[in-house]
Amino acid sequence: MSDAKRFLMTVGYDGTAFKGWQVQPGARTVQGEIEAGIARVSGGAAARIHASGRTDTGVHARGQTFHFDAPRPEFDAAQWVKALNGVLPEDVRMFAGRAVPADFHARFDAVRKEYRYFVFCGRVMPPELRFTRLREPAVLDFDAMRAACGVLTGEHDFRAFSAIRVAADENTVRRMHELSIQETEDGFYVRAVSGGFLYRMVRQLTGTLLRVGRGELTVEDVVRVLKDGVRTPDTVSAPPQGLFLWRVAYDPGDSTTN
Amino acid sequence: MSDAKRFLMTVGYDGTAFKGWQVQPGARTVQGEIEAGIARVSGGAAARIHASGRTDTGVHARGQTFHFDAPRPEFDAAQWVKALNGVLPEDVRMFAGRAVPADFHARFDAVRKEYRYFVFCGRVMPPELRFTRLREPAVLDFDAMRAACGVLTGEHDFRAFSAIRVAADENTVRRMHELSIQETEDGFYVRAVSGGFLYRMVRQLTGTLLRVGRGELTVEDVVRVLKDGVRTPDTVSAPPQGLFLWRVAYDPGDSTTN
Repeated sequence: MSDAKRFLMTVGYDGTAFKGWQVQPGARTVQGEIEAGIARVSGGAAARIHASGRTDTGVHARGQTFHFDAPRPEFDAAQWVKALNGVLPEDVRMFAGRAVPADFHARFDAVRKEYRYFVFCGRVMPPELRFTRLREPAVLDFDAMRAACGVLTGEHDFRAFSAIRVAADENTVRRMHELSIQETEDGFYVRAVSGGFLYRMVRQLTGTLLRVGRGELTVEDVVRVLKDGVRTPDTVSAPPQGLFLWRVAYDPGDSTTN
Repeated sequence: MSDAKRFLMTVGYDGTAFKGWQVQPGARTVQGEIEAGIARVSGGAAARIHASGRTDTGVHARGQTFHFDAPRPEFDAAQWVKALNGVLPEDVRMFAGRAVPADFHARFDAVRKEYRYFVFCGRVMPPELRFTRLREPAVLDFDAMRAACGVLTGEHDFRAFSAIRVAADENTVRRMHELSIQETEDGFYVRAVSGGFLYRMVRQLTGTLLRVGRGELTVEDVVRVLKDGVRTPDTVSAPPQGLFLWRVAYDPGDSTTN
């Protein structure tokens, strides 16, 4: 590491044309594009980047973060933002950067993440929204959905809301600081804030809230699923395109990353 | 025409991958796709469609309208909506349709159009908005922009705001029912409502309002340009991607087209 400087970057991407975040051979990924961009800026010196967490194919970000040890120590954070935006494709953009200590880690030092899942309510999808919204044709019961958000807020074992089976000894208790329905001009979004999420948990929660809104599940059903702690066909994953990793915070009240 | 039925359809499109509305040889256009879709639905019978007006390359629509004489007289309007959405690509969608008299014309019978021009205010464009927003990095003076909207509202000769030179004897007087700045969470949109617009007029007005917001033009400059009635370098066209044809109305209070 010697004189390498570590930076924490905030990045946005349109996940439509990416096979998710993580580098994979033969696939276009966000991590792959950014690492190639860093190599280009630094004249070929490779650097590995470390995200706050992965995102799946088709999922977007407004405030994903990653750290890296910069191969050009003469560049400050603002120069890295500018240089990377100069070489990266338009579907990935650096919003900000800052220098961090050499032992800082974008994943392990994150204290809070916010996801937003956007839903368009209507019979026909406005074409320009098709890659960034789920369309919901039913008239939804927002009161019931808000009641369900209420019972899911706070500290719970969210095992039933992981999209994959997790080992019995894995800790699946998480504290949901906020789970809310925010109405918009043409629909709503689900706002989920927690110190940590299980795999596909926001998509599972959104799919479940939609079932509540349609009257297919009651709030009591949600309480039962949460208490039973077993994945059931009652909960379904909402598709990826409505989901945005909105913000990652590194200390209480931190507002520098978005 | 014999037993052909005429329908008025409301259509939305993502203009990104279209070379505008109007059919052109060798280019993908919205009109071309819809006419091909009608031919497909009707087993090869061609029909020409007639829009409320053309839109340029990259311009979107939430509520464009067109009429056509349907080659399958057994279909009602709802069946045409459904059948066309079944064969059209996802970047063009029928929102609604209704039967109209045989002498109805989507262009000549329109009494009012609404355009919206969307602007994201910030230093870096969120990637998922890059095809549907203009990005404006400057801090804008919304009060000055609203004052400029005020002097442009009402009946004026908008000759200076046509993007092309128009013949001296052409009537360029239009009544602007509303020209307003609507603030959003991350920027604003310009809302323009009139019985008729000159070529690229909304983009010219938006470009001019942005110059006012940045302090490059005063409201008095706008008054002078409007009165002189001559295109000057003071007015510039905003790029196409922020513009949406939002609604076309056919009689006062009509709300069926969007």
